[in-house]
Amino acid sequence: MSDFLAETIASIHHPNEDIARATGQRLDAKTKPQGSLGRLEDLACRLASIRGEVPTGMLEPVIVVAAGDHGVASEGVSAYPREVTAQMLANFESGGAAVCVLARHAGARLLVVDAGVMLLPPRTEIGHARGFRSEAVDDLCETGNIATGPAMTRRTAIALVERGIALADELAIERVGLVAIGDMGIGNTTAASALSAALLPANPALVCGRGTGLDDAGLERKVNVVRRALEVNGLRAGDGNGLVASDPLTTLSAVGGFEIAFLVGVILGAAARRMPVLLDGFVTGAAALAASALAPPVPGSLLAATRSPEPGHALVLARLGLEPLLDLGLRLGEGSGAALAIPLVRAAVAILTQMATFEDAGVSRA
Amino acid sequence: MSDFLAETIASIHHPNEDIARATGQRLDAKTKPQGSLGRLEDLACRLASIRGEVPTGMLEPVIVVAAGDHGVASEGVSAYPREVTAQMLANFESGGAAVCVLARHAGARLLVVDAGVMLLPPRTEIGHARGFRSEAVDDLCETGNIATGPAMTRRTAIALVERGIALADELAIERVGLVAIGDMGIGNTTAASALSAALLPANPALVCGRGTGLDDAGLERKVNVVRRALEVNGLRAGDGNGLVASDPLTTLSAVGGFEIAFLVGVILGAAARRMPVLLDGFVTGAAALAASALAPPVPGSLLAATRSPEPGHALVLARLGLEPLLDLGLRLGEGSGAALAIPLVRAAVAILTQMATFEDAGVSRA
Repeated sequence: MSDFLAETIASIHHPNEDIARATGQRLDAKTKPQGSLGRLEDLACRLASIRGEVPTGMLEPVIVVAAGDHGVASEGVSAYPREVTAQMLANFESGGAAVCVLARHAGARLLVVDAGVMLLPPRTEIGHARGFRSEAVDDLCETGNIATGPAMTRRTAIALVERGIALADELAIERVGLVAIGDMGIGNTTAASALSAALLPANPALVCGRGTGLDDAGLERKVNVVRRALEVNGLRAGDGNGLVASDPLTTLSAVGGFEIAFLVGVILGAAARRMPVLLDGFVTGAAALAASALAPPVPGSLLAATRSPEPGHALVLARLGLEPLLDLGLRLGEGSGAALAIPLVRAAVAILTQMATFEDAGVSRA
Repeated sequence: MSDFLAETIASIHHPNEDIARATGQRLDAKTKPQGSLGRLEDLACRLASIRGEVPTGMLEPVIVVAAGDHGVASEGVSAYPREVTAQMLANFESGGAAVCVLARHAGARLLVVDAGVMLLPPRTEIGHARGFRSEAVDDLCETGNIATGPAMTRRTAIALVERGIALADELAIERVGLVAIGDMGIGNTTAASALSAALLPANPALVCGRGTGLDDAGLERKVNVVRRALEVNGLRAGDGNGLVASDPLTTLSAVGGFEIAFLVGVILGAAARRMPVLLDGFVTGAAALAASALAPPVPGSLLAATRSPEPGHALVLARLGLEPLLDLGLRLGEGSGAALAIPLVRAAVAILTQMATFEDAGVSRA
């Protein structure tokens, strides 16, 4: 592990519970029955405790969508052909993808990162802000097929994590208040399933789902691919056939993805800089699980936007201690669920900063 | 029943299922796995079927909050003193109440209606747009105590319903696309409980909850008040002690409230004009139940924003066939939950009108 990564991990602390309590007291003075805004109040307290201060203005939200291609797509684990990853990046650029529409709607900046996508030349500028390809994968267009060997070297994984931390550092300097994350990559729920099965650990059959729309045979194939991925990479799973335990970075490089490794870095960097991280679906959840394995206080900085129908997502959320804000059956990924939840996060801050108190408004108390 | 009310009821039809199917086909052409936006897609189809056409632009939302005072507050059924209704109207006017903050946040116009509030002079202009007091209750400051007699005359109830319809008609002329509704009135969960118990019918003990914060003794008192209200007004309840069945307008006048009667009219008028109605919590749900008893196709025009902890709300939602968009433990009322759900409704329309198709974007299909 590099010094940069080690220092980032060492600087991640648990949220400040004193600030959470002070925020709760402030909410209790507002013109409403105590606690009557339910989880919106909890959310306001949590945001304040992560930031380490009671917010006084709106949180500026950014959505970081990382994209990567997966060698394991050659195993037939996705309903879509793998050129869709690159095609969707073009769709992000032209503003027609779901996350583009929902980001505009939520008033959030969208930042699309090419973490290693086939068919795209290195260093292409992508998306509405800026994109970059990690130097570490300049010569690669997709990860290795995890069913036959590691996705990437440990060195590549560390480089991608560090690029993610560096982006989070930039966002902190720009005073971003909320980092929502999303993913794009044909085959990436297979990588997320393998990563979750290894880290939880859990039986692959209990983790894998239909992704973008697999049929029964496709799902069975996916479970077998995940089993092979764990076995060939010497990783344990939660089905009693445990092999060798591994450190999280080795697990990430073995069965992760370029975009997943990058998002692990974004999560670590955001947590280190006290920026709340709003997760999207299963793939971002798997990245959060890996980040939490590297830095145990990470879950304190996380918010869950949605509950995906992928069975592994419920296991990951339970491990991270997160309850999603929305439960609308979303399974698109690309940050769409996180974008939908941003108005709720901003509403929690608005309640805290803009509502009148009983005293201000001359309203009698209970 | 007046001609105006009867004609409104007769003009309420079921949503257009052909339009729902056409909307679903349009969504299937968008760059996402089919159905991957889950309930957001169902919501887009439902909005189109209510409107009778596939939306081409954003729906302009309005939040109508109706306020009224309740004679039954003298029975000690609320944690708050009854002057809070009028105090909160002033708080709505100065913009410090939760619904004001959340309406601004959602980009929705807020319309506060004084349907009969103690301590306020008749015809006061209230709120951010305009408010009015129904002529029918000019001489009244609160409803009759339902524990000892009817809340209002049948004539007053009809007049309030008609004022609500007239407001909905105005909103339709202004091309409002979504009518969110909310309520304010100390004691009004007791009226909503009695109305729901009578209309479902259901046992008062299974309907009543703690409202803004009753203790155990307060809750027991509330259940007894609702039982007495049903008995003294000759209404049946669902506990085997059924008395005389009643027509919905008589039930509404016996145990409703001024603001509830007004909201019944807003719901009927909006449904007649093909405007979707976004319900808030239990009180607006009870109004929707009464509107549906008057006009059976009404539930087709309704959307539920939140699930309240009031036990009666789950029963009402089940009867109306509605699944809330949010489940965040909200129990504030005043339209706050509806305001929080407005961004989801607008997002559903944005997906439909702004996302690229596979063909537009040159993305390969599954």
